[in-house]
Amino acid sequence: MIIDCHAHVCAAPELYQWKSVLMSARGAHGFKPKTFSNDYVRDHPDTKRNLRIMDSVGTDVQFLSPRPFQLMHAERPEKLVEAWAIANHEYIAQQVAAFPTRFQGVCGLPQAVGQPITFGFPELERCVNNLGFIGTLIDTDPGEGDNSTPTLGDEYWYPLWEKMVELDIPGLIHSTGCKNGRESYSQHFISEESLAVLSLINSRVMQDFPKLKIIVAHGGGSVPYQIGRWQADYVLKAGGTVDEFNERLKLLYFDTCLHAKKSLEMLIGIAGSENVLFGTENPGSGSAANPETGKAFDDIKPLLDSIGTLSDGDRRNIFEDNARRLFPRLSISRSQDAAHG
Amino acid sequence: MIIDCHAHVCAAPELYQWKSVLMSARGAHGFKPKTFSNDYVRDHPDTKRNLRIMDSVGTDVQFLSPRPFQLMHAERPEKLVEAWAIANHEYIAQQVAAFPTRFQGVCGLPQAVGQPITFGFPELERCVNNLGFIGTLIDTDPGEGDNSTPTLGDEYWYPLWEKMVELDIPGLIHSTGCKNGRESYSQHFISEESLAVLSLINSRVMQDFPKLKIIVAHGGGSVPYQIGRWQADYVLKAGGTVDEFNERLKLLYFDTCLHAKKSLEMLIGIAGSENVLFGTENPGSGSAANPETGKAFDDIKPLLDSIGTLSDGDRRNIFEDNARRLFPRLSISRSQDAAHG
Amino acid sequence: MIIDCHAHVCAAPELYQWKSVLMSARGAHGFKPKTFSNDYVRDHPDTKRNLRIMDSVGTDVQFLSPRPFQLMHAERPEKLVEAWAIANHEYIAQQVAAFPTRFQGVCGLPQAVGQPITFGFPELERCVNNLGFIGTLIDTDPGEGDNSTPTLGDEYWYPLWEKMVELDIPGLIHSTGCKNGRESYSQHFISEESLAVLSLINSRVMQDFPKLKIIVAHGGGSVPYQIGRWQADYVLKAGGTVDEFNERLKLLYFDTCLHAKKSLEMLIGIAGSENVLFGTENPGSGSAANPETGKAFDDIKPLLDSIGTLSDGDRRNIFEDNARRLFPRLSISRSQDAAHG
Amino acid sequence: MIIDCHAHVCAAPELYQWKSVLMSARGAHGFKPKTFSNDYVRDHPDTKRNLRIMDSVGTDVQFLSPRPFQLMHAERPEKLVEAWAIANHEYIAQQVAAFPTRFQGVCGLPQAVGQPITFGFPELERCVNNLGFIGTLIDTDPGEGDNSTPTLGDEYWYPLWEKMVELDIPGLIHSTGCKNGRESYSQHFISEESLAVLSLINSRVMQDFPKLKIIVAHGGGSVPYQIGRWQADYVLKAGGTVDEFNERLKLLYFDTCLHAKKSLEMLIGIAGSENVLFGTENPGSGSAANPETGKAFDDIKPLLDSIGTLSDGDRRNIFEDNARRLFPRLSISRSQDAAHG
Amino acid sequence: MIIDCHAHVCAAPELYQWKSVLMSARGAHGFKPKTFSNDYVRDHPDTKRNLRIMDSVGTDVQFLSPRPFQLMHAERPEKLVEAWAIANHEYIAQQVAAFPTRFQGVCGLPQAVGQPITFGFPELERCVNNLGFIGTLIDTDPGEGDNSTPTLGDEYWYPLWEKMVELDIPGLIHSTGCKNGRESYSQHFISEESLAVLSLINSRVMQDFPKLKIIVAHGGGSVPYQIGRWQADYVLKAGGTVDEFNERLKLLYFDTCLHAKKSLEMLIGIAGSENVLFGTENPGSGSAANPETGKAFDDIKPLLDSIGTLSDGDRRNIFEDNARRLFPRLSISRSQDAAHG
Amino acid sequence: MIIDCHAHVCAAPELYQWKSVLMSARGAHGFKPKTFSNDYVRDHPDTKRNLRIMDSVGTDVQFLSPRPFQLMHAERPEKLVEAWAIANHEYIAQQVAAFPTRFQGVCGLPQAVGQPITFGFPELERCVNNLGFIGTLIDTDPGEGDNSTPTLGDEYWYPLWEKMVELDIPGLIHSTGCKNGRESYSQHFISEESLAVLSLINSRVMQDFPKLKIIVAHGGGSVPYQIGRWQADYVLKAGGTVDEFNERLKLLYFDTCLHAKKSLEMLIGIAGSENVLFGTENPGSGSAANPETGKAFDDIKPLLDSIGTLSDGDRRNIFEDNARRLFPRLSISRSQDAAHG
Repeated sequence: MIIDCHAHVCAAPELYQWKSVLMSARGAHGFKPKTFSNDYVRDHPDTKRNLRIMDSVGTDVQFLSPRPFQLMHAERPEKLVEAWAIANHEYIAQQVAAFPTRFQGVCGLPQAVGQPITFGFPELERCVNNLGFIGTLIDTDPGEGDNSTPTLGDEYWYPLWEKMVELDIPGLIHSTGCKNGRESYSQHFISEESLAVLSLINSRVMQDFPKLKIIVAHGGGSVPYQIGRWQADYVLKAGGTVDEFNERLKLLYFDTCLHAKKSLEMLIGIAGSENVLFGTENPGSGSAANPETGKAFDDIKPLLDSIGTLSDGDRRNIFEDNARRLFPRLSISRSQDAAHG
Repeated sequence: MIIDCHAHVCAAPELYQWKSVLMSARGAHGFKPKTFSNDYVRDHPDTKRNLRIMDSVGTDVQFLSPRPFQLMHAERPEKLVEAWAIANHEYIAQQVAAFPTRFQGVCGLPQAVGQPITFGFPELERCVNNLGFIGTLIDTDPGEGDNSTPTLGDEYWYPLWEKMVELDIPGLIHSTGCKNGRESYSQHFISEESLAVLSLINSRVMQDFPKLKIIVAHGGGSVPYQIGRWQADYVLKAGGTVDEFNERLKLLYFDTCLHAKKSLEMLIGIAGSENVLFGTENPGSGSAANPETGKAFDDIKPLLDSIGTLSDGDRRNIFEDNARRLFPRLSISRSQDAAHG
Repeated sequence: MIIDCHAHVCAAPELYQWKSVLMSARGAHGFKPKTFSNDYVRDHPDTKRNLRIMDSVGTDVQFLSPRPFQLMHAERPEKLVEAWAIANHEYIAQQVAAFPTRFQGVCGLPQAVGQPITFGFPELERCVNNLGFIGTLIDTDPGEGDNSTPTLGDEYWYPLWEKMVELDIPGLIHSTGCKNGRESYSQHFISEESLAVLSLINSRVMQDFPKLKIIVAHGGGSVPYQIGRWQADYVLKAGGTVDEFNERLKLLYFDTCLHAKKSLEMLIGIAGSENVLFGTENPGSGSAANPETGKAFDDIKPLLDSIGTLSDGDRRNIFEDNARRLFPRLSISRSQDAAHG
Repeated sequence: MIIDCHAHVCAAPELYQWKSVLMSARGAHGFKPKTFSNDYVRDHPDTKRNLRIMDSVGTDVQFLSPRPFQLMHAERPEKLVEAWAIANHEYIAQQVAAFPTRFQGVCGLPQAVGQPITFGFPELERCVNNLGFIGTLIDTDPGEGDNSTPTLGDEYWYPLWEKMVELDIPGLIHSTGCKNGRESYSQHFISEESLAVLSLINSRVMQDFPKLKIIVAHGGGSVPYQIGRWQADYVLKAGGTVDEFNERLKLLYFDTCLHAKKSLEMLIGIAGSENVLFGTENPGSGSAANPETGKAFDDIKPLLDSIGTLSDGDRRNIFEDNARRLFPRLSISRSQDAAHG
Repeated sequence: MIIDCHAHVCAAPELYQWKSVLMSARGAHGFKPKTFSNDYVRDHPDTKRNLRIMDSVGTDVQFLSPRPFQLMHAERPEKLVEAWAIANHEYIAQQVAAFPTRFQGVCGLPQAVGQPITFGFPELERCVNNLGFIGTLIDTDPGEGDNSTPTLGDEYWYPLWEKMVELDIPGLIHSTGCKNGRESYSQHFISEESLAVLSLINSRVMQDFPKLKIIVAHGGGSVPYQIGRWQADYVLKAGGTVDEFNERLKLLYFDTCLHAKKSLEMLIGIAGSENVLFGTENPGSGSAANPETGKAFDDIKPLLDSIGTLSDGDRRNIFEDNARRLFPRLSISRSQDAAHG
Repeated sequence: MIIDCHAHVCAAPELYQWKSVLMSARGAHGFKPKTFSNDYVRDHPDTKRNLRIMDSVGTDVQFLSPRPFQLMHAERPEKLVEAWAIANHEYIAQQVAAFPTRFQGVCGLPQAVGQPITFGFPELERCVNNLGFIGTLIDTDPGEGDNSTPTLGDEYWYPLWEKMVELDIPGLIHSTGCKNGRESYSQHFISEESLAVLSLINSRVMQDFPKLKIIVAHGGGSVPYQIGRWQADYVLKAGGTVDEFNERLKLLYFDTCLHAKKSLEMLIGIAGSENVLFGTENPGSGSAANPETGKAFDDIKPLLDSIGTLSDGDRRNIFEDNARRLFPRLSISRSQDAAHG
C-alpha cells in the first residue's frame, strides 16, 4: 500500500470564496464556517480530480490537511484563524467520510501569532476526538516571517508536545505563509524546516519528550545537504560529538517531498529508510513536468523506484510501514488496500 | 596551485578590542581606525598560525576578507560600519604586503542597513584601487535579520552590479550577523544564500549585467538539494522551462565550503566543475574534527580528492583556474606557486 | 429607465479562490490576473442570478464596480492591490460586453496605502479608455482604518481630481475594508462617508475643481441627520454662514443606499432630488427582509415610490436623469431601455 | 421643569491656565488640583453667563460635567488625567453648592488609555459619594483615535457596568478628544456614538446588566438615519430579527443634542419619547445662529416645541420625567422648580 | 542699566485657556490666534505684577519670550505649534508697545519636531521685521525628549545659523517641554544645555559662522562644573588641546540664571565677565525663598553684588554692555534708563 | 592609605575579542565566559600597567569594576548581558586574588533592559558571596538612552535596595553606554547622575531604606553647580524647605571623579568631606594631560592636596575612612597599607 503522508485538501472554489469574505469582513459577518452537503463534497470535480491523480501515480491513501500557505496565521482577529481551520477540517472530514479507504484527516492546528500555543488545542482535540483525524501540521512561524515566535526548542512549545503525546499523534513541520517581503512562502518553508531540525537537535525537546513524533516536510529543508556544517557546529559550539549529533538527527522523521533523485538518495542515506515517509504534496507546487522523468515533479514514486540501492524493506518502510508506526490512529487496514485497487 | 577563495582574516585580539570600544562608544571616540605596525602584523602569532594551517592542508593562497559575522552592518551610527571595515582592510592589506605570495585581499563592502548600496563604494574603490584587493563580499541582508533590505533582484542593488563590472571584480555572497532572535548567524548564511541564488535566477540581473560575476558561499545554501522544487516553481509560477532554469543557474558560481563529500558531489554534479571554486573558510566555524576524514571539517581538500569522478581538469578548475578566471586582479602568477612550495 | 448607480459585481467563486491564492502567495505566483472565457462569465449562475434580481426589482441598468470590502488596499506588496483590481475589471468588462444594455463598468481605483494617489492611474485610464468604464470608486481610507491617509481636502488627492475632470468621470465615495479592530467595514463606510462630505465642504476642493463630480454612497453617512451640528460648526469654527454651508453641500451628490423611507425623505429634503441618484448595492449587505415593506432592505425602489411628496420630475432625476448627467460616458441610450424591457 | 441632562461646566480661565501648566510640566509640579474659593466660583462671570443663558432658553436645571474635548485621556503620565478630572469636579461641586436648584454634577470618569477601566473608580466614587454627583460621562475611546480600546461589547468594560449598577447612576456616552489626524473631535463624537449603539446592540451587555442605564449623546450619532442598514445587518450577519434589533435599541437612551427639527423627529420616532432626554450642550459647539429658528443652534427647546406630533406626556418625558427616572440621585425636587422660576 | 536677557511673558489666564482649547481641538477650531486689546494687555494684573517685581529687584529692562515649557513643540498638527507661538508673540508685542522702555521682545521660534528648521522662519522674520523683536529662543530638542533631533553640530541647524546672522540676532539656547517620562522639563533644560555647549565646541559651527551669537541659558547646564572632564575628552578623543577647548568655549555666551553665588563665581571664572549676561527668569521656577539671601532664588542681582572679585567693568558687562553688544536691535538707549528710574 | 573607590578593570585584549565574538554570535556559540589562567591575569602587561599607574599617583587600593561603557545592557538576548558581566567578574576576581592588598572587586550588576531588576541578582550574589566583592555598580539607564526604565524613585528598583541592604554593600551610580544618537556615553553619565540625585531626593527611597548606601559617580553630575535651581524647585514644586533638601542631599555620597580643583571645592563644600569618597577612574577617560597640574586629568590627588581649606580629618575621610565606613566587606586592613608602600 502506498501512503502519501503529505497531501493537502483539494477543495471547492466556494470554500476559498468564503475565506475571501471572512478575511475582508474581519469577523463582521461572524465566524460560522461555510458548510457544504456531503454529496456536494463527494461529487465535486476537485475531489474527483484528486482521486484521479492519486490513481494515476499509484497512491492508495492520502493524509489530507489544509493547504498550509492559505492558513494566514498572522491575520487578526485571531478568531479568523480558527474559523478558517474549522471550515477546512469540516471539508476534509467530509472527504474522508466519502472515501474512507483513500483519505485520512490531518489537522491544521490553528496558531494565531502572539497567542500561546494552547490557542488551537480545542480545535485540535475536536479534529482528533470527533472527526477522527490522525495527525497535525505544526507551523514553526505563525507570524509569517515576523520573527516573533520562538524556535522549537523554546518552552513556548512544550504544551503542544504534551498534547501530541497525550493524543498519540505525530506532527508535520510545515510553515504557512510568509509576509516578510523577502522570501516566498515556498522559500520560507525550506528556511523554517532547516531551523526546525536544528532547533530540535540543539535543544532538550526530544529528550524531554521521548514519545514525541516529528516529521519534517520537504526532506528536512537544507539540513542533509549542509550536514557537515551542523555537525561541526555541534562539536565546536555545543561541545558535543558527531555521533551524538547523528543520534539526535535519528530521532526525527522526514518526508520525501523532494523533486530530484539525488536529493532523495542523500536524504535516505543520512536519515535511514526507517525515518523517511513517502509524502508528495501532489497535487501542489510541484505539479510541473520534470524532464528527468517525463512526469510531474511531484510524482515522486518513480524517483524512489529508480534508486537501486533501496531494498524491499526500505521501500515498505517508506511507502507504508513508517506511516503505520507513526500514525497509530490510522484507520485503514492493510487488507483494505487490495479492496480499492 | 591551491587557491582558497573563501578565507577570513586571522587578526590580533587588539583589533577586536578596538571594535569593542568602537561599538560601546558609538563614535564618541571618533572613527579613526586602530592601526598596527607592519612588523606587528607580519609577526603576530595569529598570522603565523594561519600560515601554519594553510601549509598543513596544502593551501597555497588564501583570499582574505573580514570575518563576516563580525561586520555588524545593522549598528548605528553608520560610520561605525565603515570604520570597522577600514580597520579590517588595513590589517588585511598588511598581511598581504607581508606575504604577497600567500594572501590576496577581498573587501568587506561596508553596507549600513537603510542606506543606499553606494554607501560603501568609497571604501570599495579604495580597497581595489589603493590596496590592491581583488574582490568583495556582498551581504544580502545588512539588516541582520530585519527583513528591510530588498532581495538581489531589486534595483536597489544595481549600482553595485555596475561598480563590480567597472572594477572587474567578483562578489562573494555571504551574509553577516543575525539578530532576528530565531536563526543563528550561521543558519542565516544558508537561508540568505538560498534566497540569493533564487533571486538572481528569478530576476533579470544576470541578463542585465552579463559580465557580472557572483560566487555563492557555502555551496549555494539549500538550492542544490532542493533543486527540483525550484525547477518546478520556475515552470509553474514563472512560466519558464527547466532548461532555462538550469542555464540561469550556470551563470552563478559556488564555493566548496561544504563539509561532506556527498554534498560536494551533488554541488559539482549540478553546477559543473567550471562553476565551483575551492573555498574553505579555514580556520573558522568548520574547524572541528570530522570523523569521516579524521581531519577538520574545514579541511575540504581530502573530501574533493576522494571524489573519484572528478577529472584532473575538474580539479584544476576548482583549485585554481576558475579563481584565476573570475579574479583577473589576482597578482600571484602561476610560477610563483612553486616559489613558496 | 431605472439606473442603479451603486452595484457591485456578482462574480464566480473561482475569482475569489484566485484572490485567496494571490493573498496567500503575496506575489510568489506572479500577478497575472485569473481570466475566464466570455461564455463562462455570460452564462455563470451568479451573473444570471444578478440579472434575475434586477428584473425582480425593476432595475434596468446597473453600474458595476468591484465589491469594495474585498479590495484589500492595505495589503502588501502593492502589486497585489493592482492585480486584484485588474481581475475584477476584466470580469466586469466581460459582463458588460455580454449584457451591454444592462451593465456599465465602474473602476475600483487601485489605491495602495502609503503610495501616491497616482499609483492607480494606469489602471483607471485602462478601464475608461480601453474597457469603456464610466466612473470610479474612491476609497477615502486605503489604510483600512490606520489613519494614515489624509482626508479629501488635502492636496494628496488633487491629482485624482484633475484626472477625473480630464476623463470626465464621476467618483463614488466608498471606503473598503477596515482592520482597526473597532469598526466593522460596514460601520467604517458610514464614518468615512461622513468625513468625506465634511472634508469637501470644509476645504477648497469643489471650488478648485468646479467640474468635479462626487457621489457619496449610503446617503452621505451621518451628515443629513447631524446637519445642524455641522452647520453650527461651519459658522462657529470656520466663520462661514449656514447658506454657504448649504450651497457647498449642494455641490455634492448622494446615492439612495439607505434602507428606510424616512431616511430617504430626509436625504432628498436636504440634498434635493437633483442631487440624489438611485443606488442600492443590491444584492449585497442589505439583502435581508425588511418588515416595513415585506421586501428586501435593498429593494429601495418601493421605499422611494411610497414617498408621496416626490414629483415625477424628482423621480426621473433620481432614477435616470441625474445618472445621465453625471456619467456622460454612459453608453446605454434612453431608447434602448424599452428594448430589454 | 426643564432639565438639560447634557451640559458642561463653564469654568474660569484660570482653571484652563492651570491645565496648560499641568500638561506642560507632565507632573513636574505635582498633581495637586488648582482650587478656588467658593465665592470666586459662585460670582465668576462665566458662572453668571451660564445662568443667564439657562434663563434665556428656559432651562431650569443643568447636569454639569467637564468639557469632554478637554479631557485628554491619551496624555501621559496617567496621573495627569486624574488630576485634571479632579480639578473639574471640584469646580463643578462648587457651582452645584452655590446654585443647588440649578445645577447637578456629573463625573468625567478619568480614563487613561491603556489602563484598566477601574483606573477611574476612586474618583468616580468620590464624585458620587462625597460630592453628590448623579451620573458619569463614558469615553468610548480614551485613546483619542488610536484604535487601542475595545468597543463597549468587550469584557474590558464590565467592571464599569457593575460599578454603575452598584452606584445606581447612568452613563452618558461621549467621547473626548481626537488625535488621529483625520477626524475633528466633533466628528469623532458622532463616529463613536454610532459605534457605541451598535456595540451594545450586537453584544450581550444589556442582557448581562439589565439595570444598566446608558444615554447616548448627540442623538445616537448616525444610527437613527442609517437604521435600515443596521437592521439588515442584524438579520443578515447576526442571524437575528428586525424586531429583536428594535427591542435592543429600546434598551438605550438618547439625548436631544441635535440641531435640526427633522432629526429630532426622526430620533423620537425611532427611540420613542420615553427613551429621549432633553440635552443641549448649551453653551458649546452649537452656540451659533440657526436661521431655521432665529435662535442659536443649541437652543433646542423651540425645535422640540415645533414638533406638532408630540403629546404633553411626550414632552414631560423628554424634559423632565425620563431624567428623574434615570438619575435617581437627582436631588432637586419637582416643587423646587417653581421656587427659582 | 540692569537688563535681564532671560525673562518670559506674564500673560493673562485667557491666553492659556485658549491654548487649552487649541490643543484639545487639534485645529478643529482653526488656528487663528486669540487676540486681546492693547488696553487689556497693558492694564492686566499679570503685566502689572511683572513690572512690580522688576522694580523690586531693580531690573530696568526685560527681554520677554514665550514660556519655554509651554511651547509644546512635539504636538501635532504642526500648525498648533506655530499658532501658539504667534499668539504669544502678539501678546509680547503688545506688552512691549505698552512699556517700550521696560520690555523688548524675543521670539519663541516655532520648531515642530520632524520638520526642517526652516518651518519657523516666517514667524521668526515677522517677529524681527514686523514686531521689532531682537532675538530668539532655540529649542535644541523640539521632540521633547524623543531623541529624534540632531544635536547642534549637525547640518540640520545650518539654515538657522544663516538666518540668525542675516537678521543679526542672537539665540538663547533653552529647551522646552520634556515627555520622555524620566526627566522633568527643568532637569531636561540642564541636560540639553550641557549637550548644546559640547556640540558646539566639538563641531565646526562657530568656525563656519564666526558672526553667530549663542547664549546658553542657566549658566551652561553642567559644563562649568564638569569642565575638566570635557577638556580631557577634547584632548583624548578629539585630539585637541586644552587651550583650544577653552578658546572654543569663549565663543559662547551664558546667562546668570543660576541660583547660588558659588555657581555664579564658577561660571564667571570660566567664561569671563565679557561672556556672561544677566538673566534671571524672574518670575519663574526660581521664585522661592533662598535662605542664603533672604530673597527669592531668582533675585540674582544680590548674589552677583556679593561677589567681591568682580570689577565695575565686569558688572557693567554682565548687567548691560554684553546685552547691548549681542543684541544690536535693542531699541532702548542708555539714556532712557534714567527716564523710568 | 589612599583608596580609589572608582576604578575599572584593565583587562587583556583577548577578553574584548571574546566580547566581540559574543555580540556577533548573539549566543550561537553559547554563553560560557572566556577564562584565563591565574598566571596570565597576574602577569599580563595591562595588569602591570595599572599597578604602575597606581604607584605613580599614590593609590594604594583600587575598587575594580567592569568598564561601564562596555556593559551593553540594551543588547539581546539578555543572556549576553549576564555572560559578559560574569567574564569580567572572573577576570577581576583573578586580579584581586593576585594582588589582594591592591585590589577589591565591585560587581557590574547585569541589568538587561526590559527585565525586572532581579534579573542580575544571581550574579550579584555570586560576586559578593563567592568572589568576595564589596559593592556594585548601578546603571540607572540599562536601555542606553531609550527612556524605558523608570527613575530611581520608582518601585521598579525596590528589590535592589532590599538586596543591597541585605548584602550590606553600597552601590555606585554609573550609567553605561548610550545609543540615543545625541549624547555620548560620557555626556550621558552626567545626565544620568544628575537625574539619580534628584530622583532620590524627590522620592521616599532613602526614607524607606535608611541603611541604603548610594555613591554617585563623577561628583554628582550637574547637581552641585545647579543646586540653587533644585532647592528652589524643591520648595516651589514639592512644597518642602531648603533645609529639608539639604538634609536629603546629605544622605547621598559622591566620588571625586571631577577633573578641576574648583569643582572639587564646590562638591566638598556642598556635600561635606564625610560624604565624599576618593574616586578617579584612572586609567580611563581622564587620562590626558591637565595643564592646570602638569599631570593627567585623572590624577586627582594633587587637586585635592591643593585645596587649602581641607583639614587632615577631611582628607582622611575622603581618602580612606568614608570608604571603610561604606564598604564593610572591604578586606584590606589599615596595617596592610604600610606593607606594600
